[in-house]
Amino acid sequence: LPHTLVSEKNPLLKQVRRAAADGTLTEDGFALAEGRHLLEEAVRSRLEIHAVIAAESHAELAVDARVLRVSDSAFARLTSTEAPQGLLTLVRPRAWTMDRLLHGTPLIVVLDGIQDPGNAGAILRAAEAFSATGAIFLKGTVSPYNPKCLRGSAGSIFRLPFLTGFEPATLVDTFDHARIRLYAADPRASTTLAEADLTAGCGFIIGAEGRGVSPALSAQAAGLRIPTAAVESLNAAVAAGILLYEASRKRGVA
Amino acid sequence: LPHTLVSEKNPLLKQVRRAAADGTLTEDGFALAEGRHLLEEAVRSRLEIHAVIAAESHAELAVDARVLRVSDSAFARLTSTEAPQGLLTLVRPRAWTMDRLLHGTPLIVVLDGIQDPGNAGAILRAAEAFSATGAIFLKGTVSPYNPKCLRGSAGSIFRLPFLTGFEPATLVDTFDHARIRLYAADPRASTTLAEADLTAGCGFIIGAEGRGVSPALSAQAAGLRIPTAAVESLNAAVAAGILLYEASRKRGVA
Repeated sequence: LPHTLVSEKNPLLKQVRRAAADGTLTEDGFALAEGRHLLEEAVRSRLEIHAVIAAESHAELAVDARVLRVSDSAFARLTSTEAPQGLLTLVRPRAWTMDRLLHGTPLIVVLDGIQDPGNAGAILRAAEAFSATGAIFLKGTVSPYNPKCLRGSAGSIFRLPFLTGFEPATLVDTFDHARIRLYAADPRASTTLAEADLTAGCGFIIGAEGRGVSPALSAQAAGLRIPTAAVESLNAAVAAGILLYEASRKRGVA
Repeated sequence: LPHTLVSEKNPLLKQVRRAAADGTLTEDGFALAEGRHLLEEAVRSRLEIHAVIAAESHAELAVDARVLRVSDSAFARLTSTEAPQGLLTLVRPRAWTMDRLLHGTPLIVVLDGIQDPGNAGAILRAAEAFSATGAIFLKGTVSPYNPKCLRGSAGSIFRLPFLTGFEPATLVDTFDHARIRLYAADPRASTTLAEADLTAGCGFIIGAEGRGVSPALSAQAAGLRIPTAAVESLNAAVAAGILLYEASRKRGVA
């Protein structure tokens, strides 16, 4: 396939710069996957690859996709990370349905206002690792398509079913209807994580650090205590990982 | 105490700019703690506060320490983070000994080449939360005094005993001598985390993502498998959190 050196005025590059700055999909709906590892993960996950953008100094690529070469300085303006490795893949993400997330015995992680894209990505990765059936990004949460979230997910975002833009009330209705129990980590809850029965369909709400779980949600959720000493809270991704690990262990998967 | 508006040429500010850029202590040995929460944590942890630097626009402070006021633009050059809140505290960290880390039944987390300061901080926080006796930063690991590590630790760095700059061989000798078992997460290990007896003194080695645990160390460590599906590895802080949670659970603390 042809390798073309394109100018900074190329319309696709303009779209990429805007999406990178905003931390979202491009106008045409492609996610920005930075680095070689995510390119490999996108291929492995059988996603549509719209194009690969490579810095001029990047080694030759053997990839079954259109490759656009740009100058190193133009490339630097396409990425939000410090070590972008000179490689950026435009990937068409899958579209998921709620039915797909509720498949089998649901285990769902709900991101409630998480702002740090690295944390959001680490949560998606832990969710896939512990066989969660999906993730839900509530309104006010970082975009799952933020390039740093993609990197943090290490490719799990290409495979784990997820939905975005939910209002808390819609989530509560949907889960009620599907008989999925909502849990929220709460340092004052009487039930510890070890005591909770997590073998039926359930969802874990992960609140933003400092702010915690939205009041509208925590009122509808059962509290679960991760027994900790001294600290006010755990890092959001660490807390999510521990909850998912326990659910997986109790279900006999981990 | 007097609030003085100081110029950018103030020698202390020069030290702070250099330490912030390098992600280390200042020349005089003070850690840079950004934001109100870390100031409160430093006070609560009874550490020596050398000075508080506040942006001109920051509200008046009621704090029992020397406050230096600087212009907002000068303040912006003192910090490495995006939302520094106009407040920076210079804190004298405690000096710890290996004896202190080996106190009681040791539970130690070993950071082996972790580069991301946010991850390192989240690991320190999880270590304190699950009653670890300390943390060891091997050579080639991010400085615990990187301002982003302090923020990620949410103050745990002020209380959790830790040591830095260890060579792998020294660590192995020390742990051998103290009869502390070294464990490393390994997806190919036959023993799962749930099966391992973690009630005796033990240490968990957390390798850098992508690179894993140093060969010199993994040869000396017992492998532990966190049963995961599909993913190559977990985020380093998530993995550390799960290991520490399990140890704490098995010791009857969590």
